[in-house]
Amino acid sequence: MPKIVDHEQQKIKVAEAAWRVIRRAGIENASVRNVAQEAGISPGSMRHYFSTQAELFSFSMSLVSERVTARITSLSFDRPILEATKDVLRELVPLNEESRSEMEVWLAFVSKSLSEPSLRDHAERVYGELRSAMLLVVRVLVEYGFAPKHTNIEEEAERMHVFVDGVALHGLTYPNQMPPDRMERLLDEYLESLCKKQG
Amino acid sequence: MPKIVDHEQQKIKVAEAAWRVIRRAGIENASVRNVAQEAGISPGSMRHYFSTQAELFSFSMSLVSERVTARITSLSFDRPILEATKDVLRELVPLNEESRSEMEVWLAFVSKSLSEPSLRDHAERVYGELRSAMLLVVRVLVEYGFAPKHTNIEEEAERMHVFVDGVALHGLTYPNQMPPDRMERLLDEYLESLCKKQG
Repeated sequence: MPKIVDHEQQKIKVAEAAWRVIRRAGIENASVRNVAQEAGISPGSMRHYFSTQAELFSFSMSLVSERVTARITSLSFDRPILEATKDVLRELVPLNEESRSEMEVWLAFVSKSLSEPSLRDHAERVYGELRSAMLLVVRVLVEYGFAPKHTNIEEEAERMHVFVDGVALHGLTYPNQMPPDRMERLLDEYLESLCKKQG
Repeated sequence: MPKIVDHEQQKIKVAEAAWRVIRRAGIENASVRNVAQEAGISPGSMRHYFSTQAELFSFSMSLVSERVTARITSLSFDRPILEATKDVLRELVPLNEESRSEMEVWLAFVSKSLSEPSLRDHAERVYGELRSAMLLVVRVLVEYGFAPKHTNIEEEAERMHVFVDGVALHGLTYPNQMPPDRMERLLDEYLESLCKKQG
C-alpha cells in the first residue's frame, strides 16, 4: 500500500512541476525532459509515472479540476445560502495565486486541446462538471426562494457558466483591467440580479 | 509603390500561413521554419518579412483583430438599431468557419501571452478595442431609447464584454454544447434583457 500511495504522490509532484513549466515557459516547453528536470527526477525515471507526454498532460489537467472540485466540495453550506453560492462562483475565477496558477494551466490545456484531440474528452468532462456546479447554484437559489419559482434552471445555469468563464478569462488575461475585487463584484451582482429577475 | 503593397501582401500571406499551422498543430509548432514551409517560401527569405518569431506572432495577432474590426466597421447601421447591435456582437463569436479560424488563433495567442510578455501589450490593445465596441453598442441602445436612460454605460459594457467573451470561449472550446444557433440566441437574449432592464 505505501508504495501505491508514494507512486500517486510522485505523479502529483510531477504534474505540479508540469504546471510550473507551463506557467513559466508555455505549454510548448513542457516536454517530458523539461518537466523531469523541474521535478528533480531523471528523464529515464519519468516512464515509471507517465509513458507519454499526452498521459502527463491528461493527468495534469485532471489534477486542476480535482483541486477546484475539492475546494467547492469543502465549502460550508451551513450559513446564509446567498453567501454560500457566491463562494462557489468565487472558486471558479482566479482570485488568488493558487487559483490563478490552476486556471492559467487550464487555459493552456484548453487552448492546446483545439489542435490535440487526446485532450478533448477531458475538457468536455470538466465542462460537464462545471455545468453541474452551476445547475446546483441556480437550483438552490430557486428552492430557497431567492430566485423566482418560474426560473428556467437549465438556461440560467448555461448563462451563468458563460458569464463566470468570461470573468475568469478576463481575470487571467487582463489582470490590470480585471483585478480580484472587480471579479468578485461582477459575480456578486450577477447572482443578485438573478434573484430579483422578473418573468 | 507596388513593391510596398506586394511586401505587405506577402506579410499577410505569411501570417495566414501561421494561422493555419497554429490551428492544425498548435502554436508550439509555428516555428519560423514551419510557417515558411506552409507559406511556400524558403526559410531564408522569411527574414525579408519578419526577423523574429515574436514579430511574426505580433503581426499575425494584429491581423486577427484587424479582420474583426473591418467586418464590424462594414456593418450597415441603416436598419433597425436592435438588429444592427445584434450583428455587432455576432462578429465577436465563432459563428462560421472564418471567425472560428480567427478566434482559435486568437485564443492561442492570448494563452501564449501569459508566458510571453512581448504579446501582452498587443492583447491589451485589442481588449481596449473590444471594450470600445461594447461601449458603442450600449450607448446606441440607450440613445435610441431601447435601454433605460439610467443605464450605467461603463458597467453594462464591461458585463457585456465578459458575457460575449464567455460565449466565444465556449463556442470555441465546446462546439458540441455551444453550436452557432445557441451562441446567437444567447447574445440576442442578452441584448433583449438589457433593453427591458429595470433600475
